[in-house]
Amino acid sequence: MTSSVAPLSGRVTLKQGGGGRAMRNLIEKLFIRDFAAMPFEGVGLAAMDDGAAIPIGDGRYLVVTTDSHVIHPIFFPGGDIGRISISGTVNDLAMMGATRPLGITCGVILEEGFDIEKLEAIQRSLVATCLEAGTVVITGDTKVMGRGEIDGIVINTTGVGITRRVVRDNGLRAGDRIIVTGTIGDHGLAVMSARHDLALEGDLVSDVAPINELIEAALEAAGDAITAMKDPTRGGVASALHEMASKSDVGILLSEHSIPLTDAARAAGEILGIDPLHVANEGKALIGVRADAADKLLAALRAHPRGRDAAIIGTCTTERLGSIILDTGFGRRLLAEPEGEPLPRIC
Amino acid sequence: MTSSVAPLSGRVTLKQGGGGRAMRNLIEKLFIRDFAAMPFEGVGLAAMDDGAAIPIGDGRYLVVTTDSHVIHPIFFPGGDIGRISISGTVNDLAMMGATRPLGITCGVILEEGFDIEKLEAIQRSLVATCLEAGTVVITGDTKVMGRGEIDGIVINTTGVGITRRVVRDNGLRAGDRIIVTGTIGDHGLAVMSARHDLALEGDLVSDVAPINELIEAALEAAGDAITAMKDPTRGGVASALHEMASKSDVGILLSEHSIPLTDAARAAGEILGIDPLHVANEGKALIGVRADAADKLLAALRAHPRGRDAAIIGTCTTERLGSIILDTGFGRRLLAEPEGEPLPRIC
Repeated sequence: MTSSVAPLSGRVTLKQGGGGRAMRNLIEKLFIRDFAAMPFEGVGLAAMDDGAAIPIGDGRYLVVTTDSHVIHPIFFPGGDIGRISISGTVNDLAMMGATRPLGITCGVILEEGFDIEKLEAIQRSLVATCLEAGTVVITGDTKVMGRGEIDGIVINTTGVGITRRVVRDNGLRAGDRIIVTGTIGDHGLAVMSARHDLALEGDLVSDVAPINELIEAALEAAGDAITAMKDPTRGGVASALHEMASKSDVGILLSEHSIPLTDAARAAGEILGIDPLHVANEGKALIGVRADAADKLLAALRAHPRGRDAAIIGTCTTERLGSIILDTGFGRRLLAEPEGEPLPRIC
Repeated sequence: MTSSVAPLSGRVTLKQGGGGRAMRNLIEKLFIRDFAAMPFEGVGLAAMDDGAAIPIGDGRYLVVTTDSHVIHPIFFPGGDIGRISISGTVNDLAMMGATRPLGITCGVILEEGFDIEKLEAIQRSLVATCLEAGTVVITGDTKVMGRGEIDGIVINTTGVGITRRVVRDNGLRAGDRIIVTGTIGDHGLAVMSARHDLALEGDLVSDVAPINELIEAALEAAGDAITAMKDPTRGGVASALHEMASKSDVGILLSEHSIPLTDAARAAGEILGIDPLHVANEGKALIGVRADAADKLLAALRAHPRGRDAAIIGTCTTERLGSIILDTGFGRRLLAEPEGEPLPRIC
């Protein structure tokens, strides 16, 4: 994986926060280097998975995952920074198999002069999303920076959960099917449209939601036949599949016409000139599953309100290891690995 | 406790991030309100302790604590933002009894254009402090905000640890002694001096350090005789003691001449007009201990390099519940509860 990364330049760039190749480069070259060499039993930083997993005895693993939320604007169609803070962390826990969070920490950093009414609205959203996910904020931290030192509000959430089976993002094998749990690109395109004040026909809203219940249903239906999971956030489905393929050492043949997409997202993508495969989702999962369990898993996902548009979108192959081959219906082409999310502060 | 807090105003103020009464007001009125009513088994948000504690079976508790670090300047006498990020979180875990962290998460938020060399220096500091504390960063998150959207770098760290005994900050009883593990005010005064470019005689350096090993020695020496612990960070010893006294429903008689203070900190406090009792420490603990175990605990602390200036500084009483009475040697006066840290971005 390190062979494809460029040397670090002298200054941090926006792309290095975009969830794609540029960010991976920064993380691999700088943050992981030393920590990967330190003793740690479990899934740690070097794995670059959705979180960490630590054996705590009795066959159980503690799953820990963290995210800082810098989204702009803080209120957007379909959600707000409170909803994305809880959902993002709940979903990362679920991706590793911990579908029932023990609790979430919440570190809020505020700009002096931030409107208390807005803060109360964000708090209501944090609470509502916790209730939806069956979890609660268990501890927190509040910092205030001066005017102009931070743009409004940033929220860090860290989640903890326990699981007996840690699901990784690197377990795909040739023949496995790739399932996406619903339509793609809605979050990124909705936020971009809001930022550009696009007046679009139809309802383009973020998909931001906790999907731990959906993932629990998936794990109940397909169990060990599930070989990998990852939520396609920054960098979208394209980034997430590249990471899964590269770590699993398989190629993935993706069927373009099978990918669920709303008309609104398709239209926004065309107007903005952005491929929905490249933008963030905040209520979706990519699941790798053994071929003979794919239909059963698909049925279980579709039976849940948050999975009714689930679809089988690809197959793992022994060709083009680490690459994604897009079958457009007219031919096949390699899907490039994105440098990162097209726009910063998408989550 | 809520009777002493003022109503929230329309805008967030710097004081509300200062670790004192103003911040407690914001947190109680806004963040805790709904979460405290939600079902949770363990020490949760409502406790406003140094972190959360969740029973995980077999008599064990998972301790979780989070902090965002917004310190300015990011390099200061005696430390930097990397060292404070790891130390602060390791120390919060230790304050609740989890002296051997399972791991730390690290969420880094960077400003576009941030110098990669500085980032590498911070990373070296994160690594060195983890080695010192016997822990490791296990998962992380990287975000980049645009120029002017965040001032340089902010780091969130969340720590997880396991303990069989959760130490709280509310267990003081009348007669207990209060021990501080070393000199006070060094961190806050060193950072303020750096910010004001004060040329002070002597060495005024931050005390920032992981003290989990020291706390483990304390718990081994005094066990259940330790009735409460808290690290006096933002708002200093004055804030922390007020919180402990108020939660424990005791008064605390504090002996001013017993409080360890370096000459450099005393001089800086006088020049800046700031009471060292009111400013942040980043490598100290306040420990409540039964009177008959105080000397044994003190000896154990002093035997450790990070505890050699430890001192008994106070006694819990049934008078003036929730208040701190300062015995100056010339008389007694009530120590006011600080609104918060005198300057923002001290940690």
